[in-house]
Amino acid sequence: MLTPGFTGGTLDRADAMRHDDDALAAAMGNWQARLLVLHNWEPEVTDDGRLGWTMLTEAPDDAEFVLLGLDRGRPRFAALLPGQGAPPPFRSPTLFNALEQLQPGEAATFATARSLLDWHARHGFCARCGTATAIFRAGWGRRCPNCRAEHFPRTDPVVIMIAEHNGRALIGRQPSFPAGRYSALAGFLEPGESIEEAVRREIGEEAGVEVGAVRYVASQPWPFPSQLMIACIGQALTDQIMLDTNELEDAKWVSRAEVLAVLNGTGDAFIAPPPYAIAHTLLDAWARELA
Amino acid sequence: MLTPGFTGGTLDRADAMRHDDDALAAAMGNWQARLLVLHNWEPEVTDDGRLGWTMLTEAPDDAEFVLLGLDRGRPRFAALLPGQGAPPPFRSPTLFNALEQLQPGEAATFATARSLLDWHARHGFCARCGTATAIFRAGWGRRCPNCRAEHFPRTDPVVIMIAEHNGRALIGRQPSFPAGRYSALAGFLEPGESIEEAVRREIGEEAGVEVGAVRYVASQPWPFPSQLMIACIGQALTDQIMLDTNELEDAKWVSRAEVLAVLNGTGDAFIAPPPYAIAHTLLDAWARELA
Ligand SMILES: [Zn+2]
Ligand SMILES: [Zn+2]
Repeated sequence: MLTPGFTGGTLDRADAMRHDDDALAAAMGNWQARLLVLHNWEPEVTDDGRLGWTMLTEAPDDAEFVLLGLDRGRPRFAALLPGQGAPPPFRSPTLFNALEQLQPGEAATFATARSLLDWHARHGFCARCGTATAIFRAGWGRRCPNCRAEHFPRTDPVVIMIAEHNGRALIGRQPSFPAGRYSALAGFLEPGESIEEAVRREIGEEAGVEVGAVRYVASQPWPFPSQLMIACIGQALTDQIMLDTNELEDAKWVSRAEVLAVLNGTGDAFIAPPPYAIAHTLLDAWARELA
Repeated sequence: MLTPGFTGGTLDRADAMRHDDDALAAAMGNWQARLLVLHNWEPEVTDDGRLGWTMLTEAPDDAEFVLLGLDRGRPRFAALLPGQGAPPPFRSPTLFNALEQLQPGEAATFATARSLLDWHARHGFCARCGTATAIFRAGWGRRCPNCRAEHFPRTDPVVIMIAEHNGRALIGRQPSFPAGRYSALAGFLEPGESIEEAVRREIGEEAGVEVGAVRYVASQPWPFPSQLMIACIGQALTDQIMLDTNELEDAKWVSRAEVLAVLNGTGDAFIAPPPYAIAHTLLDAWARELA
């Protein structure tokens, strides 16, 4: 079984508690309740790769609490700080470092908190009528006091994939990537598409490569801000690349041996995405013929 | 290859045209441009199961156009009617009938149009600042004139799955289902979850059944209003059911023979979901050992 980054979380999401005000109040008053430590949207990481937690009383007076879940019965929260604005779109060097240090299950908890808080920070008004909304369901929704519309956190599905042809995989680089970095191609799935159709469309649009059969490999949540990354492999019908230079700066075919060498640090065909990115999982699984 | 309902669309989504105002204006002026006929959000279906189309000039003066794509080069649009409100949450008998009649590729085009228009109808205001937003990118987004935030259509991932144990599949019925109907279990994927984790959580929450390995089967868009249905099979570690009666009215284990008999019309263990629902595809593929 593949274990992409940000998976393997151990919190019980305690869905029933979101609908039970009394149980939620009791959880907040529980002496074992803890609040996720975030500095400017970034986690605190202990020496053994765990998240930092503090008491709920450490939050500012105007904080609103989001129930992340229960850790063996012990309530775990994150705090929404009114007026904090939205997180920056780019990951800082300290955040990159934190993500490299976090144990996988801990990263999953951080991902849940970061996606939820980011959604609240960017969705304070009713999309239906424009009125300011209020948090409900222990932080898992917002409700409009005017039109009564209920709004729930977004999760945007993204397909991320390599094309495969005669034992080689198609990888590409976006202009914004660090020098030398190549990765799987990726794009948002659109309304009216299946996963398989989105994979074919994206490889066609970005690299001009026609794809037949598509197979699913694995998935991960990606909390910048809140994607569901769906990793696939598409069978290319040709190896002719016709680049859309608005999307990709370059694309190329690489062999399993080249990918393996890059991932074990002995090859320089390209620089791989970081281990917590599912593109890494996908390339690794493909190169070792596990996907 | 499985072909769930609402897949197999043949329109070229023509992404580049969404970013090119001149090309879009030319497409709207093209004598081959056509407008999808919708009556109260429902398609017109011809005798041979195709969608009805008309001239763009048939739209009211205040209509806004959404580019669905190109049909062998011919531009295809849908119209957003300001003040029309949002579609009803339930499918009417005429819509049920239309969905049964539509050819698969045609249903895919309808699904794209319906999801997009529904999104516009329920997202006229900026979630970030509350200002009324305006359509852009040929209908594939809305932009805020105040804070400049760009908003894109939602697609909400839903996991839909059977659990499997000793050659039997777990199916359930929600209180809102028609009498006798059973289907796969289903639920929205949440921020911070992978597909596999959402499958395990939902089966656990709804039926109290613990699941180990999860395998992906297929996906489909579902335009009521805009879900991505992700069909999976989870390996149950037990066949003991502990129902959450807030979610399910009943759940039971059925054999491949029982499912096959239901699907070919000779069995009465339950009433199956309609053919265009991916739960149908999933049950059929599982019963025939194709998934
Ligand atoms: Zn409202
Ligand atoms: Zn705004």
